[in-house]
Amino acid sequence: MNYNKISHEIFSQLKKIIGDEYVINDEYNIGIYSKDYTEDFRFPPEVIVKPETAEQISEIIKLANKENIPVYPRGGGTGLSGGALPVFGGICLSMERFNKILELDEVNFQAVVQPGVITEVFQIECESKNMYYPPDPASRGSCTLGGNLAECAGGPRAVKYGVTKDYILGIEFVSPTGEIINTGARTIKNVTGYNLTQLIIGSEGTLGIITKIIFKLLPKPKHKKVLLAAYDSIQDCTASVAAIFQAGIIPSALEFMEKSAIKAAEDQLGKVFPNNHAAAQLLLEVDGNYEDQLNSDIETIAGVLENFNVIDIVLAEDNQRMAEIWALRRCIGEAVKSISAYKEEDTVVPRSKIPELVSGVKEICERYGITSICYGHAGDGNVHVNILKGNATEDVWNNELEPAIEEIFKLTVSLGGTISGEHGIGYSQKKYLPIAMKQNELDLMKQIKINFDPNNILNPGKIFV
Amino acid sequence: MNYNKISHEIFSQLKKIIGDEYVINDEYNIGIYSKDYTEDFRFPPEVIVKPETAEQISEIIKLANKENIPVYPRGGGTGLSGGALPVFGGICLSMERFNKILELDEVNFQAVVQPGVITEVFQIECESKNMYYPPDPASRGSCTLGGNLAECAGGPRAVKYGVTKDYILGIEFVSPTGEIINTGARTIKNVTGYNLTQLIIGSEGTLGIITKIIFKLLPKPKHKKVLLAAYDSIQDCTASVAAIFQAGIIPSALEFMEKSAIKAAEDQLGKVFPNNHAAAQLLLEVDGNYEDQLNSDIETIAGVLENFNVIDIVLAEDNQRMAEIWALRRCIGEAVKSISAYKEEDTVVPRSKIPELVSGVKEICERYGITSICYGHAGDGNVHVNILKGNATEDVWNNELEPAIEEIFKLTVSLGGTISGEHGIGYSQKKYLPIAMKQNELDLMKQIKINFDPNNILNPGKIFV
Repeated sequence: MNYNKISHEIFSQLKKIIGDEYVINDEYNIGIYSKDYTEDFRFPPEVIVKPETAEQISEIIKLANKENIPVYPRGGGTGLSGGALPVFGGICLSMERFNKILELDEVNFQAVVQPGVITEVFQIECESKNMYYPPDPASRGSCTLGGNLAECAGGPRAVKYGVTKDYILGIEFVSPTGEIINTGARTIKNVTGYNLTQLIIGSEGTLGIITKIIFKLLPKPKHKKVLLAAYDSIQDCTASVAAIFQAGIIPSALEFMEKSAIKAAEDQLGKVFPNNHAAAQLLLEVDGNYEDQLNSDIETIAGVLENFNVIDIVLAEDNQRMAEIWALRRCIGEAVKSISAYKEEDTVVPRSKIPELVSGVKEICERYGITSICYGHAGDGNVHVNILKGNATEDVWNNELEPAIEEIFKLTVSLGGTISGEHGIGYSQKKYLPIAMKQNELDLMKQIKINFDPNNILNPGKIFV
Repeated sequence: MNYNKISHEIFSQLKKIIGDEYVINDEYNIGIYSKDYTEDFRFPPEVIVKPETAEQISEIIKLANKENIPVYPRGGGTGLSGGALPVFGGICLSMERFNKILELDEVNFQAVVQPGVITEVFQIECESKNMYYPPDPASRGSCTLGGNLAECAGGPRAVKYGVTKDYILGIEFVSPTGEIINTGARTIKNVTGYNLTQLIIGSEGTLGIITKIIFKLLPKPKHKKVLLAAYDSIQDCTASVAAIFQAGIIPSALEFMEKSAIKAAEDQLGKVFPNNHAAAQLLLEVDGNYEDQLNSDIETIAGVLENFNVIDIVLAEDNQRMAEIWALRRCIGEAVKSISAYKEEDTVVPRSKIPELVSGVKEICERYGITSICYGHAGDGNVHVNILKGNATEDVWNNELEPAIEEIFKLTVSLGGTISGEHGIGYSQKKYLPIAMKQNELDLMKQIKINFDPNNILNPGKIFV
């Protein structure tokens, strides 16, 4: 890519658009904004800008088109596929000043929100009004809603409630040519022209910069119950997942953790899981408005699990215990990554194929002499495969990782799945995208990108090789 | 538009692609395929083709591009916005031979289906395996799943379960240039490139011809309860809708019918509704796995409705009575349309705005001297406004209808809604689309159409003026 560098003149124009204090290029900040949560990638932007309005973003985008400067939108910087990395330098466009909840509509169960709001802040505000926003990425304490839309974040509740895209009625976004576009309406039903909302969601900041979000919300379920089920074998554990749904139950979460994932979480938090000697465990949650019903659901689930040689089922006795168990589960991602150099893959398959996926991953990694830790959202088939350098030689790590990952992804696709459930393709996964789709499918997507962004200035270097 | 006519040579080539018997142009069939369920429009195609495979469709599309012939895909022909009408003649491409359910996956709650399958046939097959496909358009007995995707059909259960788009994991489609494209995967989560699935759904056959569908299904709820609530005033009736959700209940259906809609249904079926003297009624349904819970939900609902001067609540005592009530509700659309010349609008607003919408519609129609009958899916804010010619003069009907509809749509949009919830824009509504969106939003959509279909051969004359 041949982009221009940011001249003094362009620098001054940026300051004119959004004010001196919001155009930043000191070394410290450049350092911060050159990375996200994806492995150890570092790509420094030339400048960080912090606009406050869609109109300012439109002006910045028009300037970038005129001057041939790449623009990298950024939310909380917690992405796991490098979606926000300024891989060709240029402008890092931080959305942190878009941090207002504009409206919480308790009558229609809707909200209008700016994209820089932290996901957990929004969840808490909704719950304070007895409304419920189910998407719940592990990084909820620091990720932003705009980033969640860009990557179509998921989390553990997707099994019952779906992912981010399922809660968006409409958006405002700035197109890669600087147009301010509104999509959707404040309605659940809408067949009024093409579904631009869903084209932008999950497009990882390559087709537009989201500047406003209309959310659909739910009434908050009144009760929930959490239980842990321990198994002596990973196969029994993963095989029990699909059977729960066949009994007519849709849990609000159904998480899989192998022993080494639990160990990492225990070490990180200095706490212990029950049955931490077990080969694998499921964390199950059910929710609803009637406690009796949940008790009955749990009995049904326990009956199912017994057919799969469950060795123990522990019911969290109160809210505090539920919170502790969830805290342990939530920290696994970070805990696993602190063990050694790592690479995280975001495989997803139909839930009945999890046993084949996990045993296949184990076999492939063993063959390549690398360590894997698997955990994730078993209810929706989304298994995070963490590949750890551990004791592998530099040679193995540098040269044999890619073919191993390719094998894992080919297996995933052959099982009816795909290579990213909720992390996106971004920068780190783009070389693997052709495993998941044919050339004419890639071409059609690229054609959309070129059509939206003829100068390729918005988040270039992502999704496509 | 300057399209070519179908020559003998092209006719022969079509026969070569799909076989003589599936290329049809006798007068009787041309008559049938020249209309759908939208008012009294008639646009004869020059030929009807009935392909059996995506490859055949690809060949037909390539031929159409080469020869500059428009192609009009068609499902069950039950559309209410003229989406399937061959407005520039050319080829009617009927999907009726794509009528196979390829796979019902009871373990993962998924199905792989051809688009020509009748919706109700699919629903029944799913339920026979204890699985549930919630989208339920009124025309389910004759519409097809492909048409449901093309128009993003909804129906009464959308209030709890969402619309057609919410049940699609992926599709195969033939692009307007003849490429066979696969989207999605057999997973709930998927962030692997752009969401082409959702771009094609609701695009009304203008961006691709759907040839295969991967559905997500649910476990079938074990119980349901239906009740009718009668009111002396339309305002009280519609105002009670939002309050039900605020009590924490999400009904599986919440339908609004004004007296004249009920009367039309009674006349059509020769049966009677309870409380048919009431100004308006709600049909409420709740579903779930626990009967106790539903009884408790109904008590809560009854408590809410009493705050809105409900005059009677009738609980359907058994399955037969539930079926009878639903049959009455379902026939309203057809019944109302049989009264006189009509125009049906598919308004949708946030549910709390229904009282304003309905009273506004009444006021506007009265002012123009035309009759309106309102009914529809109040739970999701989707009110079908049927405007009847009734006693209006030809002059009023021909000259004052359009400004009246414009006023209704402007009101709808001003309330946060939009001009089509589930019928689409198609042919009949395209002149009103600029009421719902700004020029740059329309331009972006048109740009996508041109990008996908440079020769504008696929379903031209739809959505955009």
